[in-house]
Amino acid sequence: MTRIAIDAMGGDNAPKAIVEGAVWAAMEYNIPIELVGKLYDIERELDRIDQEGILCSVAGGILPPKRIKVNTKNLDIKKTAASEVIEMGEAPGQAIRKKRNSSIVLAVNAVVTGSSNAVVAAGSTGAAMGASLFGLGRLPGIERPAIATVLPTMKGPLILIDSGANTDCTPEMLYQFGLMGSTYAKSVLGINNPRVALLNIGEEAGKGDELAKDTYKLFDENKNKLNFIGNAEGKEIFLGNCDVIVCDGFVGNVTLKTIEGVAKMFFYMIKQEFYHDVFSKMIGVLVRPILKKMYAKINYEEFGGALLLGVKGITVICHGRSSAYAIKNAVKVAYNAVKSGVNETIASYYGEI
Amino acid sequence: MTRIAIDAMGGDNAPKAIVEGAVWAAMEYNIPIELVGKLYDIERELDRIDQEGILCSVAGGILPPKRIKVNTKNLDIKKTAASEVIEMGEAPGQAIRKKRNSSIVLAVNAVVTGSSNAVVAAGSTGAAMGASLFGLGRLPGIERPAIATVLPTMKGPLILIDSGANTDCTPEMLYQFGLMGSTYAKSVLGINNPRVALLNIGEEAGKGDELAKDTYKLFDENKNKLNFIGNAEGKEIFLGNCDVIVCDGFVGNVTLKTIEGVAKMFFYMIKQEFYHDVFSKMIGVLVRPILKKMYAKINYEEFGGALLLGVKGITVICHGRSSAYAIKNAVKVAYNAVKSGVNETIASYYGEI
Repeated sequence: MTRIAIDAMGGDNAPKAIVEGAVWAAMEYNIPIELVGKLYDIERELDRIDQEGILCSVAGGILPPKRIKVNTKNLDIKKTAASEVIEMGEAPGQAIRKKRNSSIVLAVNAVVTGSSNAVVAAGSTGAAMGASLFGLGRLPGIERPAIATVLPTMKGPLILIDSGANTDCTPEMLYQFGLMGSTYAKSVLGINNPRVALLNIGEEAGKGDELAKDTYKLFDENKNKLNFIGNAEGKEIFLGNCDVIVCDGFVGNVTLKTIEGVAKMFFYMIKQEFYHDVFSKMIGVLVRPILKKMYAKINYEEFGGALLLGVKGITVICHGRSSAYAIKNAVKVAYNAVKSGVNETIASYYGEI
Repeated sequence: MTRIAIDAMGGDNAPKAIVEGAVWAAMEYNIPIELVGKLYDIERELDRIDQEGILCSVAGGILPPKRIKVNTKNLDIKKTAASEVIEMGEAPGQAIRKKRNSSIVLAVNAVVTGSSNAVVAAGSTGAAMGASLFGLGRLPGIERPAIATVLPTMKGPLILIDSGANTDCTPEMLYQFGLMGSTYAKSVLGINNPRVALLNIGEEAGKGDELAKDTYKLFDENKNKLNFIGNAEGKEIFLGNCDVIVCDGFVGNVTLKTIEGVAKMFFYMIKQEFYHDVFSKMIGVLVRPILKKMYAKINYEEFGGALLLGVKGITVICHGRSSAYAIKNAVKVAYNAVKSGVNETIASYYGEI
């Protein structure tokens, strides 16, 4: 049995959206859940859900939200008490050492003790990373865990690794990100022989900063271990010509947030264009469902969360603003990651778990 | 009199689009031009324009292209012979040393000799930078020239500096980019007390890699010299809450190209959505002009080109795929930059030109 532990207190919409998403996943996928947090809050939410049902609102709101009746008592939902919460502003390292009874630390602990098999967290990314690294430990041979985010492209999903865990990297670290990302693409996304590229400012081998140049060489020397296809520029990310794109966490995080920013501006501009006269307003009404469908395709909620790779266990890190729908999908990502044996494969490169 | 020298041979659409853009600028803005390149090619294009006119196609093609009659003999267009061309694939440093008679080297030389006052170049960015740095020299006190690109935001223009000139930077270099960007925003874009932010992965002072942390401190210590408003994340770029965003050329170039990539994907997705059934196709026809208007707003062609700041002269670097419309706008950017005295102001921080 594979159970997913969820930090019920983490995220802007916690505990409401988190508990709803967890219940939704338990119901739709029949996945056993362990909710970790303040018991009073968790039980209040579960009671509310038993009375009101869940308002199932899909990303982008393509369809009108559907209220679904549910009896949480019939679902396999474990509740684990955590008296503390790590807030977004706290220094992660310090917070996880001080707040030993925080929901994120105890959610990770549930995996350590074997009560659950993976963690889903929508609170402070730093705290989730710290608690996972500290609680689960690194996979053998892996220097630094990294965050692997799945992005939509014109053709299919793409893994961006590292999207924010490590700011100052060495070529060896980036090479390991490539190995881990490639394994993720194969094991979880089912991509055969994933094409791995290095995010750079030009396609030729000699391009980029010192880190990029040295990393290129290292990837090139290890072509027998992964399908390295060379450098890729930012504009190529979305063409769907590679499956894994590797960069340090600083560049990755800036890239990820830039994408979010551009997407927001687009929808803002579209709204503006469709609101400045009667004619455009009329077209706007017709266009809305099509735009919503498009929005849903690129919405991060569809992918649920990003995987922290390189730790001895599965941790899925969600957007702070995660909705119930995002959490439901994140639980599925965590579940699939456990089933895929991604960690066992990564560990096999350097030793054994 | 302010004359703009143009590398007529640089860019994917050279010499056609370049010569057309130059003629268009000369006509519309009454700006004197110096076309540098193979005389045979330049004259052939000018003859063609005299016979056919210019097909004035605005970015995004909002309006149907208009053919305008023109007699290039009535315009102030100087022609300067250059027998060589630096191709896109060539190593820039080597190429500018070897090809002393290349169009880009001689276009820069036109500024050195005083025949023109600024250069517009759509060929190899590396060659344009190298030729400018080598030919014009650095402004006093400036460690490294940087590329300042103007981006659209929800509120107004934003300067991204450095967008690709320098890959491995020090805090001092980034601080100078901030100073130069701020001066550009003030002198050329007319923004009073420009808000300068550091591109980072979090808003708090302690965020980011070593470079970002040290640079933050340096900016903070020099708050009396520029309006430093702290860190900004990638998603904030487009909110219009800052006027200048500073980063090293690696991050800047990845960011710039990511924006280009996302924009492309958007329009690709929109096309797809409006083409899969009769109903959506019908809406598509109505929507097209609105989307074109939107596209024009974010199209790089509107801004013409990016300014290379920190050299003793004005060099405007254009997109390799520049159309005549982009070149026309780039000539205007170059002209405005000369008139603004941006370099004199930058030089005054550290000494005199």
